[in-house]
Amino acid sequence: MLSGLSGETRIHIIVGDPVAQTKSPAGLTRVFAERGLDAVCVAMQVRPSDLDAFMAAAKRVRNIDGIVVTVPHKFAALRHCERPSERARALGAVNAMRRERDGTGDAIWAGDMTDGIALVAALRAGGFAPQGRRALVVGAGGAGSAVVLALADAGARVAVHDTDAARRDDLRARLTSRDIAAGSADPAGFDLDVNATPLGMTAGDPLPVAAERLAPTAYAADLVTRPVVTPFLDAARRRGSPIVTGEDMFAPQAGILADFLLSASG
Amino acid sequence: MLSGLSGETRIHIIVGDPVAQTKSPAGLTRVFAERGLDAVCVAMQVRPSDLDAFMAAAKRVRNIDGIVVTVPHKFAALRHCERPSERARALGAVNAMRRERDGTGDAIWAGDMTDGIALVAALRAGGFAPQGRRALVVGAGGAGSAVVLALADAGARVAVHDTDAARRDDLRARLTSRDIAAGSADPAGFDLDVNATPLGMTAGDPLPVAAERLAPTAYAADLVTRPVVTPFLDAARRRGSPIVTGEDMFAPQAGILADFLLSASG
Repeated sequence: MLSGLSGETRIHIIVGDPVAQTKSPAGLTRVFAERGLDAVCVAMQVRPSDLDAFMAAAKRVRNIDGIVVTVPHKFAALRHCERPSERARALGAVNAMRRERDGTGDAIWAGDMTDGIALVAALRAGGFAPQGRRALVVGAGGAGSAVVLALADAGARVAVHDTDAARRDDLRARLTSRDIAAGSADPAGFDLDVNATPLGMTAGDPLPVAAERLAPTAYAADLVTRPVVTPFLDAARRRGSPIVTGEDMFAPQAGILADFLLSASG
Repeated sequence: MLSGLSGETRIHIIVGDPVAQTKSPAGLTRVFAERGLDAVCVAMQVRPSDLDAFMAAAKRVRNIDGIVVTVPHKFAALRHCERPSERARALGAVNAMRRERDGTGDAIWAGDMTDGIALVAALRAGGFAPQGRRALVVGAGGAGSAVVLALADAGARVAVHDTDAARRDDLRARLTSRDIAAGSADPAGFDLDVNATPLGMTAGDPLPVAAERLAPTAYAADLVTRPVVTPFLDAARRRGSPIVTGEDMFAPQAGILADFLLSASG
């Protein structure tokens, strides 16, 4: 119950611009309750030009335990984390910040980027085991980068395609230790194809890959959430592919964010 | 339900230090729901030295509609209000700030100090009608000042007593248009006696007034909430006085705060 809020309730923020669409206030607050915690997640809409001042102030609010970061702040938020994870550094972005203490007792933020591992968890839940499989990720932006890294760390052999070759190669360079291949819009030979572009949100968008070249046994996954079944997923399903929708892909997010936010301070 | 929170939920903050004791998160959130609003109040613990940076950041968070201010920030918060009410200016303090827009569309804060009117509402609910009655308020601090002003504005003839005569006279000077008398610890002749000091919170405290001089028909009210029936109220009750406890006094707060926070922007 909202009337269960009190002055002792621990606060987590999700910061973005806009925030009306975010599911974290409901999802995270429910997970907190399921785990027996008196904690709540509320959204705060902050413009990019105001982010630094917001982060400075939030650090000083003593009952804010965590900050979830969404569009467009995931990259800028990294510089506010004194303790970013290795994958956050590799991706240059964070989506979650947890209050910790440094050696002198001052507040600092640990940061992580859990989008990719949440999406891989969703693929596993949908029946796709990444180890040793060939995966094509289309889109080398923030979400695509996170998926590429998480799939590689889960043992997949990953190729990335982006119509912006420089963006694609920049990602491959940042993840050089993971040996990410340069892909194309041709999905032939892959066991998994992930759309991490906005294509499919708008009627008339081209498909992100040449759907007629999809292997019928390959999984198709899409990060677009509206429509739930995108034209890409629809084409894949018609060819017999198992599909994982955007809604499926984001379903594990709250639990994985909570795992990070509620971890014992280092 | 807390899981009713969403990215569209409007945010109100109560800022204080500490905040664990505040009842506004539960009380205001319940009032918001009763009035059909998707809005929530969450507490944020901010040290005095961090208040200015916090207020600057909060103004830029676009879905924060209001800020409730509690101890020790009520005086410092006034300088963050571009539109303080007349009584907020007279008291030099605010307990509630509402987001409005100036002529150019920039966010500004309207501020009010509703503690006094909430306490007068509680006295009325307890059966005391202030108009023309003689009231003694003991304690010229923030709470006492608010009660003095609200009682005077409700038509009572008010005297104020404080063991710190300079503090008492400073209050009288700030409220010079209300003609507040200098009182003493002698309650004889008053129709209402209000304790606005901390006396009674700690076992062994002296009584705020000479209880044996209380008129048996006079109302006795106390802002101390723990214990609910203070030694002062107990003494008054034994003499036959109607009493209004600290819990009674704070009961109307959430509704009156909501009235201000939810008023149409000016």
